[in-house]
Amino acid sequence: MITITIIGSGKVAYHLICNILESDKCTIKQIYARNPNALPSLAPLNKVVNDISALEPADVFIIAVSDDAIQSVSEQINVPNQFTVHTSGTKDMQSIVNTTRKGVLYPLQSFSKQKEVDFSLIPFCLETSQTQDFELLEKLACSFSQRVYKISSEQRKSIHLSAVFVNNFTNHLYTIAQEICQVNQVPFEILKPLILETAQKVQTLDPILAQTGPAARNDLQVIANHLELLQQKDQKQIYQLITNSILKHHV
Amino acid sequence: MITITIIGSGKVAYHLICNILESDKCTIKQIYARNPNALPSLAPLNKVVNDISALEPADVFIIAVSDDAIQSVSEQINVPNQFTVHTSGTKDMQSIVNTTRKGVLYPLQSFSKQKEVDFSLIPFCLETSQTQDFELLEKLACSFSQRVYKISSEQRKSIHLSAVFVNNFTNHLYTIAQEICQVNQVPFEILKPLILETAQKVQTLDPILAQTGPAARNDLQVIANHLELLQQKDQKQIYQLITNSILKHHV
Repeated sequence: MITITIIGSGKVAYHLICNILESDKCTIKQIYARNPNALPSLAPLNKVVNDISALEPADVFIIAVSDDAIQSVSEQINVPNQFTVHTSGTKDMQSIVNTTRKGVLYPLQSFSKQKEVDFSLIPFCLETSQTQDFELLEKLACSFSQRVYKISSEQRKSIHLSAVFVNNFTNHLYTIAQEICQVNQVPFEILKPLILETAQKVQTLDPILAQTGPAARNDLQVIANHLELLQQKDQKQIYQLITNSILKHHV
Repeated sequence: MITITIIGSGKVAYHLICNILESDKCTIKQIYARNPNALPSLAPLNKVVNDISALEPADVFIIAVSDDAIQSVSEQINVPNQFTVHTSGTKDMQSIVNTTRKGVLYPLQSFSKQKEVDFSLIPFCLETSQTQDFELLEKLACSFSQRVYKISSEQRKSIHLSAVFVNNFTNHLYTIAQEICQVNQVPFEILKPLILETAQKVQTLDPILAQTGPAARNDLQVIANHLELLQQKDQKQIYQLITNSILKHHV
């Protein structure tokens, strides 16, 4: 049984706790949460501490706090030689400063507390400073997920950047589409099957091969009509820039 | 039984024919295809003609050819007063010139011949010039799909434009993400669950509420790091422009 101490009460901490509670391979040793009300209702309250110096050794400490707080939180941990990981996509492993046994356990997913998450489908990116700790972290991650990857800090940053494109930016394109629908009194709902199909298609087909649309077939007339339809300056610029980029890739 | 004549042998014609063959509410009267080899293998060859003047009256003629060919094809149809629709997202209903009984049957989906398509989930946008023809077209569309909408030519153009954002542009963002992965020797596969989750989230949640990421939380440090990581000029510009647009929406 891997004993895990969770530090934090944000979205990642929340889902980690939920999944550890359901696991038969790991168990919660302690939870350090400044805001215990934010924890899942099933969290074992007798294991929650609000004084970081009350933490005892465990197999792994998981720091699941905001990126900017990782270093200062790790400085306050006072357990000698404790194997400690963070869960950030952007921060170096070296942000953990209290120990030489450090690592990263980065779940590549966008979490919200309202929605249950199936950890088994989430890719986990793993990194450790000490070879012998990698095995333990891998065992832990594999108890949650079928998709576990050994990823360096540099690679992890590029994954986080790619994730911004496929998640945050894509979602913003959905937002723009909804705005266009609203202006023209069309239900956004009508686009939902296409949104899903677009994401499903690249599960098996390379995106470069899945590309369709006016820019991919160099249909300058449709592009001109679309630019005329777009009233909003930012929308026009985004349309123009992505269209030009598609033209360069495909024409 | 609604009798349908299909004009064309492209992707939309292909999937229409497949679905009509399986329907018990409509049947194929004739198919005009300049390239019969492109038709589905199950298409009834005895009904295929390669001379447009050989077409006989049917309940509906569906012109499923490229946008630019709709008008010239419709000019060649020589069946008086024939109810005729096209399947384009961008062309006016008035592109059909041979008859006063005209309409549009626009399936909002991105088709490829390699992939079977479940028509029942595809939204169909309907428009007719004559009220009495709408009922027929609606009956036809409802025999394929649960999602049938009455949509004007103007609205349809805005839907097509929105579809470019959620389908073509989104797919290009996937392409960029794959390029970033390749440069950093990370498998693109790692992003696939996130791509799917992003599309699934907006099936039930408004995209403006689903927005996360550095721009949405005004994390200027991460944004600066990302811009530094991006080597390719076009990628940098797209990152900057969409980030600015998210900042305007959320900060």
